[in-house]
Amino acid sequence: MEKRYRTTFVNSLPGYKCLHMVGTINVHGGTNLGLFNSIFHIGADPPLLGMIIRPESTDNDTLHNIKATGAYTLNNVLPEYYDNAHQTSARFQSGKSEFKHCGFTEHFIPSFKAPFVSESSINVGMEVREIIPLKINGTTLIIGEIKQIIMDRSLIAADGHVDHVKAGTVTVTGLDSYFTTNLIERLAYAKPNEKPWSSTGVDA
Amino acid sequence: MEKRYRTTFVNSLPGYKCLHMVGTINVHGGTNLGLFNSIFHIGADPPLLGMIIRPESTDNDTLHNIKATGAYTLNNVLPEYYDNAHQTSARFQSGKSEFKHCGFTEHFIPSFKAPFVSESSINVGMEVREIIPLKINGTTLIIGEIKQIIMDRSLIAADGHVDHVKAGTVTVTGLDSYFTTNLIERLAYAKPNEKPWSSTGVDA
Repeated sequence: MEKRYRTTFVNSLPGYKCLHMVGTINVHGGTNLGLFNSIFHIGADPPLLGMIIRPESTDNDTLHNIKATGAYTLNNVLPEYYDNAHQTSARFQSGKSEFKHCGFTEHFIPSFKAPFVSESSINVGMEVREIIPLKINGTTLIIGEIKQIIMDRSLIAADGHVDHVKAGTVTVTGLDSYFTTNLIERLAYAKPNEKPWSSTGVDA
Repeated sequence: MEKRYRTTFVNSLPGYKCLHMVGTINVHGGTNLGLFNSIFHIGADPPLLGMIIRPESTDNDTLHNIKATGAYTLNNVLPEYYDNAHQTSARFQSGKSEFKHCGFTEHFIPSFKAPFVSESSINVGMEVREIIPLKINGTTLIIGEIKQIIMDRSLIAADGHVDHVKAGTVTVTGLDSYFTTNLIERLAYAKPNEKPWSSTGVDA
């Protein structure tokens, strides 16, 4: 396979991915915003999320800042801003802030170092718990713990489920195709001897 | 937070996830099918995907079989089968095959040990490259390499991009909410001094 074809194919093969803008700050106060699609659940208690950072990518500032400050933010992408969010993946000169160049607004809160994105409806402040270099291909696994959440209460159902249709969260395939979604159904906890049943509109 | 609320909240907070049924086989020929939503891109060359397996979950057979055989399959979930797929997450007795109990058909190919799912439009055969226990919470990171792909050629664009709308791939939030998608736009590779431009209908 030709290199670009391979990159496009392998990145898009597994399907829809968790899309976030990752906000960080360096020790001199310079901010950075990068687009990530390899964020995944590791555990609920403690609340841990993983993230893969590639060595050769534009996320070098992100990795550098996370190592220096131990903090980063995850900010969802709304349909009104998917093109601006995509633009944060461009190879800006190190030190240039994608916030300014891509039309996003930094939002700081007193107890947290890294900048949140005002144009997102869900902001999550993460504290680094572990940095694991993956020798197999030189990427880095960041394991972080959820420490801050800024979002409207109305996005959370009575049982804790977050409504991403209401939140306007966009998803992605590959590195460049953006999607909104339609709920098919929310199902109840599966049990071996029962047919699956809907819980849409029950807990939600 | 109460335990179930916390699990629901943390699992749904990050947004849409990569949903797959993972097919495995044990050394006695017994098959297993489990539902996973923490599969993520690690690299394109070699083509590597990561997957988190929880220690306490129903995926114990999956982990056991992967360790024993070094092989597993990823199979996308179609809208006609999301409820059957959800049912594979029930805690079936170890050794009982979810293929049979949830209405899926095993498909084997000569050169690959693990079973594929006939009811999926994209089947990926994975070979284990590394198993990393994450001490932080007892989960396991499986790193696998893509070795086999069974899918219709028409799902792949000229530049290698896989069309998941055409493939009928379903996405998930939390552990139980299933979604179809609508393409907003496919954008071209981002460059620092250019506005993002559409590549929908160009490369696709």
